[in-house]
Amino acid sequence: MNTDFSAWAVARQSRFEEVLRDVLPQPEIAPQRLHQAMRYAVLDGGKRVRPLLAFAAGELAAAEVERVNIVAAAVELIHAYSLVHDDMPCMDDDVLRRGKPTCHVQYDEATALLVGDSLQSLAFQLLVEHRLSDGPQQQLAMIKLLAVASGSRGMAGGQAIDLDSVGKSLSLPELEFMHIHKTGALIRAAVLLGAQCGHVSAEQLAKLDHYGKCVGLAFQVVDDVLDAEADTATLGKTAGKDEDNDKPTYVSLLGVVAAREMVKNLHAEALDSLVDFGDAGQRLRELADFIVLRKF
Amino acid sequence: MNTDFSAWAVARQSRFEEVLRDVLPQPEIAPQRLHQAMRYAVLDGGKRVRPLLAFAAGELAAAEVERVNIVAAAVELIHAYSLVHDDMPCMDDDVLRRGKPTCHVQYDEATALLVGDSLQSLAFQLLVEHRLSDGPQQQLAMIKLLAVASGSRGMAGGQAIDLDSVGKSLSLPELEFMHIHKTGALIRAAVLLGAQCGHVSAEQLAKLDHYGKCVGLAFQVVDDVLDAEADTATLGKTAGKDEDNDKPTYVSLLGVVAAREMVKNLHAEALDSLVDFGDAGQRLRELADFIVLRKF
Repeated sequence: MNTDFSAWAVARQSRFEEVLRDVLPQPEIAPQRLHQAMRYAVLDGGKRVRPLLAFAAGELAAAEVERVNIVAAAVELIHAYSLVHDDMPCMDDDVLRRGKPTCHVQYDEATALLVGDSLQSLAFQLLVEHRLSDGPQQQLAMIKLLAVASGSRGMAGGQAIDLDSVGKSLSLPELEFMHIHKTGALIRAAVLLGAQCGHVSAEQLAKLDHYGKCVGLAFQVVDDVLDAEADTATLGKTAGKDEDNDKPTYVSLLGVVAAREMVKNLHAEALDSLVDFGDAGQRLRELADFIVLRKF
Repeated sequence: MNTDFSAWAVARQSRFEEVLRDVLPQPEIAPQRLHQAMRYAVLDGGKRVRPLLAFAAGELAAAEVERVNIVAAAVELIHAYSLVHDDMPCMDDDVLRRGKPTCHVQYDEATALLVGDSLQSLAFQLLVEHRLSDGPQQQLAMIKLLAVASGSRGMAGGQAIDLDSVGKSLSLPELEFMHIHKTGALIRAAVLLGAQCGHVSAEQLAKLDHYGKCVGLAFQVVDDVLDAEADTATLGKTAGKDEDNDKPTYVSLLGVVAAREMVKNLHAEALDSLVDFGDAGQRLRELADFIVLRKF
């Protein structure tokens, strides 16, 4: 990772943490325990990949920072809610997330359920109570994008397919279909919403969408490789869960070597879709490198 | 219940069922099991009190039916998601709802979790992809109203307070605070959103809000009385749960007689806030009667 990119990312991560602290309900407001648990589940955690993608796309599109802050926060709240629910005993039953006890372990299951539900409502509240674009029609279209990316034909739908796939052998296209929904939908939404806070043509948006699709899928394949190879300490969450859960992954389907090859190809394709943007695409290029090279 | 009102309600319930069938993802679209479970959780159930309130308020405000259909559906999807999550083992652990096995019993817990999550996303998707008002700014304000009513300072927050109250003795104001959030927020939203699909003044809206607050609270007190008195067959859900769960209710706090008295007063106050509307407020008056007199 070059130092320039590293400084860029750290500055945005740190600014974004302040944004999250502001938009989340303050811990002393009733119901306090719920609000504290919401903050626990969201703050001080993760690499904020989706927000960074939104910031990079926003800068490419010369968007106002205040607008991108809001869409990045909304996407991250949706992501955080999905982690809280995903970690619950009836789903992945995980006790460790981002190096901390998961929300239902730290609080309790009922609270974790309500934390996820409330984070989702808050994401949509943010998108309607702030100005995100010059015209309100465009803003409604942006909110629709996040609603679809989150719902049964997006992220939650991908998780449902994931559930149904336990113990089954999926084909490569089926696995891809699952991940394009489960992880990809929200990553694409982050890129597109960041860009739509500024000014891009329909053609440019289509290229950014393809970039988002490639890095979203690469992100998942990298995750599968890391899960198969890394230990729990490095990963910050319980390693080897996929194999334990008998879940189909790119590694179980292709083996580690071919999975790494797939990442390389997706990486190249992501960079390809940025060619026409020239220098303005630099941060998105670096983010593609960052996502792909994380631990390889 | 007078026959005129009964015919009005039945016609709208039946039309609304078609609306829900249309807006819910079709069962043959992937992920099929999730979509089937979403339909199971929403269709063929309940008295549709919130949609009826939205329809009555919409008719009072001369709103287009197509717009009110959408806000009524969004409110009902939020309500349905809250029931699915509320029934789960980590919350109320209920097996029966609207006379049918609850969603997690009929499917499984993980699916029920995703059903609730997806229904919430769908509610917001509906509100952004349809035209609800003449101006998009007003539409954004309407969506904010539902987001706030659903989240940690609305319905989900009320449920969190409810959780924290198990085994505690609440004061009457504390119990009221809980129910104004847990049940009241969404009922008020139904009335206000129905009216805002048409044309009402700020003063009229404030009166409708007060009406919604009164019937929302009355609804909960009636529920408490019914839970204490009715048997499971009449109720369509497991009776006596509140006492079993050691939850504070209006009956445990006031006794049945004073709880009924409170309902009477709220009923009168609800009707009072409609005085200025004349004949146009008739359906809302009848709905207040309906909510209060359900099984008394």
